[in-house]
Amino acid sequence: MAPDPTRVYFDGTDRDRAAFEAGIKLGAIAHQYVGTPLASKTVASLERSIEAATRLQPHVERVRVRVDRKRLRTRGPYDYGVLTEDLLDVEVAVRVGDARAIGALRYVPELDYPLMYLKEVGRPRKS
Amino acid sequence: MAPDPTRVYFDGTDRDRAAFEAGIKLGAIAHQYVGTPLASKTVASLERSIEAATRLQPHVERVRVRVDRKRLRTRGPYDYGVLTEDLLDVEVAVRVGDARAIGALRYVPELDYPLMYLKEVGRPRKS
Amino acid sequence: MAPDPTRVYFDGTDRDRAAFEAGIKLGAIAHQYVGTPLASKTVASLERSIEAATRLQPHVERVRVRVDRKRLRTRGPYDYGVLTEDLLDVEVAVRVGDARAIGALRYVPELDYPLMYLKEVGRPRKS
Amino acid sequence: MAPDPTRVYFDGTDRDRAAFEAGIKLGAIAHQYVGTPLASKTVASLERSIEAATRLQPHVERVRVRVDRKRLRTRGPYDYGVLTEDLLDVEVAVRVGDARAIGALRYVPELDYPLMYLKEVGRPRKS
Repeated sequence: MAPDPTRVYFDGTDRDRAAFEAGIKLGAIAHQYVGTPLASKTVASLERSIEAATRLQPHVERVRVRVDRKRLRTRGPYDYGVLTEDLLDVEVAVRVGDARAIGALRYVPELDYPLMYLKEVGRPRKS
Repeated sequence: MAPDPTRVYFDGTDRDRAAFEAGIKLGAIAHQYVGTPLASKTVASLERSIEAATRLQPHVERVRVRVDRKRLRTRGPYDYGVLTEDLLDVEVAVRVGDARAIGALRYVPELDYPLMYLKEVGRPRKS
Repeated sequence: MAPDPTRVYFDGTDRDRAAFEAGIKLGAIAHQYVGTPLASKTVASLERSIEAATRLQPHVERVRVRVDRKRLRTRGPYDYGVLTEDLLDVEVAVRVGDARAIGALRYVPELDYPLMYLKEVGRPRKS
Repeated sequence: MAPDPTRVYFDGTDRDRAAFEAGIKLGAIAHQYVGTPLASKTVASLERSIEAATRLQPHVERVRVRVDRKRLRTRGPYDYGVLTEDLLDVEVAVRVGDARAIGALRYVPELDYPLMYLKEVGRPRKS
């Protein structure tokens, strides 16, 4: 594989970059799709579409997007809702050289906050 | 069918509202999805997802979304693009009472502009 | 003033187009900015920025954007919120030839819905 | 200062998190604001509004947003443009405990790509 031509622009290690790239993907998902009209029957289509778009981005190894159907609230005279960050449950694995980062976004009830966090970062585990 | 409880808030005729609602849908599509990472293999998923979300909104009778695959430009070291308004070709039919409006969005080369316009407005044609 | 070169693409009357254009602006505002991080001290900056962007768009005569400071809910360990459609109170006046439409977006408690509606449409009143 | 209650959710070091948080902010900026109507006279308002929203987010120490006025292209019958990722020049400094990361987004002509990169990561320099 050809070396990544963006490498010279980066300070730090592959591990630093893996963490950084995981953050980018989560920030992008939250801010691109929040506000999208949503109902039970469109949830799967939206999940697949977000996953497909995320896989195109640099260094993504794996991504899983779930919208919390139980917390989805439809309302008003036309009975639909919109995507909010609280409804998103995302896990994205990023690989840079020998390093991997797994970033996650999920609503954490104890914090009353949709938290983006590093679920795992370092060398990939042997499998 | 129960009368629409939003009606009392509106000035004007059903035809006015049909034109207004068609505009809302086009403005929403352009500003929700522009910036989405995009490549040939994700185009169909994005088109379906936009159509599904649009169908949830008030008074939508029919919607068709196409992304112009020929004008889609992928680039950079990771070879993907993003959705721009110029790539969108949308037609949305809205029905309010006896009135219908068909709104369209497409890039018009003579204007060098992604134009949103009323393709048809008035009483639906007999079929 | 030169005639509008987009006119030939439109079906209907100036009044139809005024209603349509008002809808576009409201759909655009809701879907561009929902999800923006927000707190009391950034509300004014966001309001002005949305107004400035809206004024650039075709046929806008006047626009007023307010974010409901009372309903703004900050939360979580970092004590900020995000813009939702429910927080927006927008009025946009559009003029096309002899016709004017005033579109509005505001949360209507009786409907539990952020309604976009035509507040006024027709010939401008004499002033 | 009270300890950050989100800490227990994170794998890795403060340095990992600093890199991760810098990525989040850049991903968020690109995907929240791309598509915003734009002209020379609204550039400053948009820049300030993005900076203000970014400063609300966790661990942001400093942020600077510039829109490249020279590359901004207005067009069409109404002579305005929209924000694209290529127009953005962003630098965001994030501090987590003893670690700092500076993330940047700018269009890199040699790559023909709006690159997000870690400009600096590690212990803050003595000042």
